[in-house]
Amino acid sequence: MAFHLDIYLEENRKLIDLELSNIIDTISGDHTDLQRSISYSISSGGKRLRPILCIASCETLGRDASDLVPIACAIEMIHTYSLIHDDLPSMDDDSLRRGKPTNHVIFGEATAILAGDALLADSFNLIAAKIVEKSIPPLLGLEIIRDISSSVGSNGMVRGQSLDLFMEGSSEIDIEIVEEIHRLKTGALISSAVKTGARFAGADGDILNRFTNIGECIGLAYQINDDILDIEGGADFGKSIGADIKKKKLTFPSAAGLEAAKKKVDELTKMALSEIEKFGDNSMALAAIVKYLGERKN
Amino acid sequence: MAFHLDIYLEENRKLIDLELSNIIDTISGDHTDLQRSISYSISSGGKRLRPILCIASCETLGRDASDLVPIACAIEMIHTYSLIHDDLPSMDDDSLRRGKPTNHVIFGEATAILAGDALLADSFNLIAAKIVEKSIPPLLGLEIIRDISSSVGSNGMVRGQSLDLFMEGSSEIDIEIVEEIHRLKTGALISSAVKTGARFAGADGDILNRFTNIGECIGLAYQINDDILDIEGGADFGKSIGADIKKKKLTFPSAAGLEAAKKKVDELTKMALSEIEKFGDNSMALAAIVKYLGERKN
Repeated sequence: MAFHLDIYLEENRKLIDLELSNIIDTISGDHTDLQRSISYSISSGGKRLRPILCIASCETLGRDASDLVPIACAIEMIHTYSLIHDDLPSMDDDSLRRGKPTNHVIFGEATAILAGDALLADSFNLIAAKIVEKSIPPLLGLEIIRDISSSVGSNGMVRGQSLDLFMEGSSEIDIEIVEEIHRLKTGALISSAVKTGARFAGADGDILNRFTNIGECIGLAYQINDDILDIEGGADFGKSIGADIKKKKLTFPSAAGLEAAKKKVDELTKMALSEIEKFGDNSMALAAIVKYLGERKN
Repeated sequence: MAFHLDIYLEENRKLIDLELSNIIDTISGDHTDLQRSISYSISSGGKRLRPILCIASCETLGRDASDLVPIACAIEMIHTYSLIHDDLPSMDDDSLRRGKPTNHVIFGEATAILAGDALLADSFNLIAAKIVEKSIPPLLGLEIIRDISSSVGSNGMVRGQSLDLFMEGSSEIDIEIVEEIHRLKTGALISSAVKTGARFAGADGDILNRFTNIGECIGLAYQINDDILDIEGGADFGKSIGADIKKKKLTFPSAAGLEAAKKKVDELTKMALSEIEKFGDNSMALAAIVKYLGERKN
């Protein structure tokens, strides 16, 4: 039977959007904009890449992912918090995200900061609650929380954001620092989505390490591709082309050149694919997503 | 043997400060101010009230609290994140905290936002990691993460902060909304510290509910007392007297009057004490802390 990536992505997006909308319904909307602000950014048409990678990784090991959906959504909530905070005036100062005004433009800075904070705390609440409710082994739940929080905190994504800001406008173009920024700022959460899916399916030891490596390749390729698209643009990129150049961001293409950057994306994609394909027939969805990401133009 | 509150507070503060300093040492200090920013706010001389309440609650049930210290520290990290974000220009816009310049005054807004984010994510990482390392029952660990994250997120402390900002300058003084703000903004985390200590000691069902109630009384009394001190000042209050009035904050004394506010603190303290004392000799530390908080002048 042929595998249709479009249908796979669409079906999973629907599952994720439904779960996210149920989560938002549990937030009080009384007296403040907090719930509307959270809802605005959660519903703003993301690709749901991280939760779908999480689900596809789980399925690659032959395990049904239904009970994993809320945990995958928690990862999307963390991603959304990071975008809201990243866009703030004191951070990247972006007024456009996915073609729409950013959260603080609509709701003000205070509410945007609080919406991000709430999403981050709520994400761990969601994971802990669902692990208990669905009788998933508690130790597995703790390991998942440990992985995800570690990919976010002061030695993970937040450190990546901080490095990114500190290196803005830096004359010193060090390819190792660029890779560290990418690995942390974008790679860490993507990689932990892939790892979480595998862990949920029962992976440990060598298998878990292989998924961690796959996740790291995907994450780094994704961020380099974003930087390439920032230069070349895309039909539907949703943010201003050249934004990185204007901010003098340290990017892979600016450090190594556009061609080297494209070559790096190809290499990383091939490395991930060759690892994924070792898992046989069940790996079709994950492989198709990785191929699609390696070739994406938006 | 007589109980010496000063010695108890001092000894526990040392334990907590040592643990927090070990945690900060695990954060990379390379290339950015992130670690210095986190360290600055964590080490700025807080009373460590929340972690000490957590430890004292555990001891009230006769259980040794050594393994609880890191979890108690995670609560202090969450408290610290909330102070950093609360002080931001777009939030309360405070330049002084505990008598020292606030985080964003020293490190800039971007780093202050990121330091708060990192502390929040790191706190859940710390809890999950320590539960696994110290072989604490994983289900207990998940329940603790669930309680704490719920007290922080969009229906907890963050909602309280949001309500507080939305009600600023409101002409409508509704004592129920004031109580809800207090219950969420300050009470929820204090209450979850008390509950976590009891849960760690093995409490569930009725006993856990009683600790939750004790925590809620302590939390509400603490915030009302803060508002009273904002009006009357104190020898060592560490922030500008009258700050709430200048910002037209909705406070308990402004809604119900100063005398009614003082009476409420006394009532809440007595309620908490009468519940605590039912737990017998082991409750001495917790009772002494609550008495001290009810009478504090800074």
